[in-house]
Amino acid sequence: MKLISFQTIDGVKLGIKTEKGIVDVRSTAEQAGLSVPASIEEVITAGQSGLDSIRQVLLHAEEYLDESSIQFAPVVQKPNKIICSGANYHAHVAETKLAIPEYPIYFPKYQNSLAAHNMDIIPPSITEQVDYEVEMVVVIGKEARNVTKEEALDYVFGYATGNDFSARDLQFRGIQWLYGKAIDDFAPIGPYLVTADEVPNPQDLDLKLWVNGDLRQSSNTEKMIFPIAELISDLSQVMTLEAGDVIFTGTPEGVIVGREEKDWLQPGDEIVCEVEGLGRLVNRIGAR
Amino acid sequence: MKLISFQTIDGVKLGIKTEKGIVDVRSTAEQAGLSVPASIEEVITAGQSGLDSIRQVLLHAEEYLDESSIQFAPVVQKPNKIICSGANYHAHVAETKLAIPEYPIYFPKYQNSLAAHNMDIIPPSITEQVDYEVEMVVVIGKEARNVTKEEALDYVFGYATGNDFSARDLQFRGIQWLYGKAIDDFAPIGPYLVTADEVPNPQDLDLKLWVNGDLRQSSNTEKMIFPIAELISDLSQVMTLEAGDVIFTGTPEGVIVGREEKDWLQPGDEIVCEVEGLGRLVNRIGAR
Repeated sequence: MKLISFQTIDGVKLGIKTEKGIVDVRSTAEQAGLSVPASIEEVITAGQSGLDSIRQVLLHAEEYLDESSIQFAPVVQKPNKIICSGANYHAHVAETKLAIPEYPIYFPKYQNSLAAHNMDIIPPSITEQVDYEVEMVVVIGKEARNVTKEEALDYVFGYATGNDFSARDLQFRGIQWLYGKAIDDFAPIGPYLVTADEVPNPQDLDLKLWVNGDLRQSSNTEKMIFPIAELISDLSQVMTLEAGDVIFTGTPEGVIVGREEKDWLQPGDEIVCEVEGLGRLVNRIGAR
Repeated sequence: MKLISFQTIDGVKLGIKTEKGIVDVRSTAEQAGLSVPASIEEVITAGQSGLDSIRQVLLHAEEYLDESSIQFAPVVQKPNKIICSGANYHAHVAETKLAIPEYPIYFPKYQNSLAAHNMDIIPPSITEQVDYEVEMVVVIGKEARNVTKEEALDYVFGYATGNDFSARDLQFRGIQWLYGKAIDDFAPIGPYLVTADEVPNPQDLDLKLWVNGDLRQSSNTEKMIFPIAELISDLSQVMTLEAGDVIFTGTPEGVIVGREEKDWLQPGDEIVCEVEGLGRLVNRIGAR
């Protein structure tokens, strides 16, 4: 299933994308007399029974919302962790002049960075170097501690398209990257959270990014230095991953910091990210 | 006031430390027919009225718990962010052979790292280099975005003693520190969260740390390179700080990584941290 979160006057609601349109899970369930999870977080926490119950709702759907008429919310709302993998594609490592890492490199974002599909991103006034990074995003489905690479993907709830917006001047003002990364609205994810059963091989998906229609990044998740299963296993050796936790899995080559002409993003620029099968995430840079 | 969170069979409860002992806020309020916040988070979110209402409870207190009889919980439970300042004392920067930073350096922890006073800390099996760092910890009281240095301390709810446990081999396996820092239970905070009104000058407090009774760190918060107000103002230029967010403000010299004899912490070691007026935080390294 392709799950979405969308804004209504009653707050954020859970939807399912179908070929006919978006099913409003709660409304449909109420009409059918079914009890269902009210949010993506509740679906994740409920595990297989959560998925089964909303799948049941689909059978009763009679009304469909037009996707262009809804206001998307971030696909997850309250993850305890947002952990980003850096320098995880060879050609991106080369363009940023970093060394090929011996171990995965991680840096943080927090809930304040979450943003939605179609949302304008307004950078802080103190940066002049806003950059994009298309990434495949993983959402954890259940508690994971000391899991092996072989079992790691069993702990994935689903996948989404993400953009790891970065303020390069702030990221590199010192030796740690947090300040240029954990910025308000700099982690849009969406439009959909695609359940893991619909992604048979997460390590063979094309990733693409366009700025104002100009293709800037084009690669495939097979080119990750540390595949998703390794990232999850590695993280779980030191920390408990929890249902709803978010992992950004790194970006391929083509970011602005690696280009000869450093044409940093400007107000009005439209950035489109796409990971194969996960949907197109559109954001514009807003005026400060 | 000195607020505490403590474990009971009914869950985590809010307490206030007084000279006579610990006041159980909810029990006292129920007996007096008062309505009060149920947790430190609720007190923080309620602002001045939250503080006023629990201060009211103190007037009705008749029973006091013995501090040695309670099981402490982390002083905050669900912060959206735990941001740590690194390399923020000159003599510590010197011992770690880093450069004096031009700007504050930040690295992350998450909720999984929170731990309580008196709790045993069990390191991951993959580290051999567990180190300590006594720090003054700041808890944010209300939303802060683009605040100046001059007004920054108005956004502080309170202060606590913290220990930024670190796995040095994991911290320095690559160029970003997250993996050696954001470890389960590696951020004990407590025993008390001391409200800001009781800390007239947070930049003049002694910090001390002992390992098995041996004094290892001894300095004063006046020696921070970037004082608390600068950290808050600086962070708020790129992110919205929220009520309950936690900032670790850096450690002075005396950590193991800076010692000639690298006597990494071992199971059974007792680490005591003290920040003047904020209480003594005691933890032992548990067996893996």
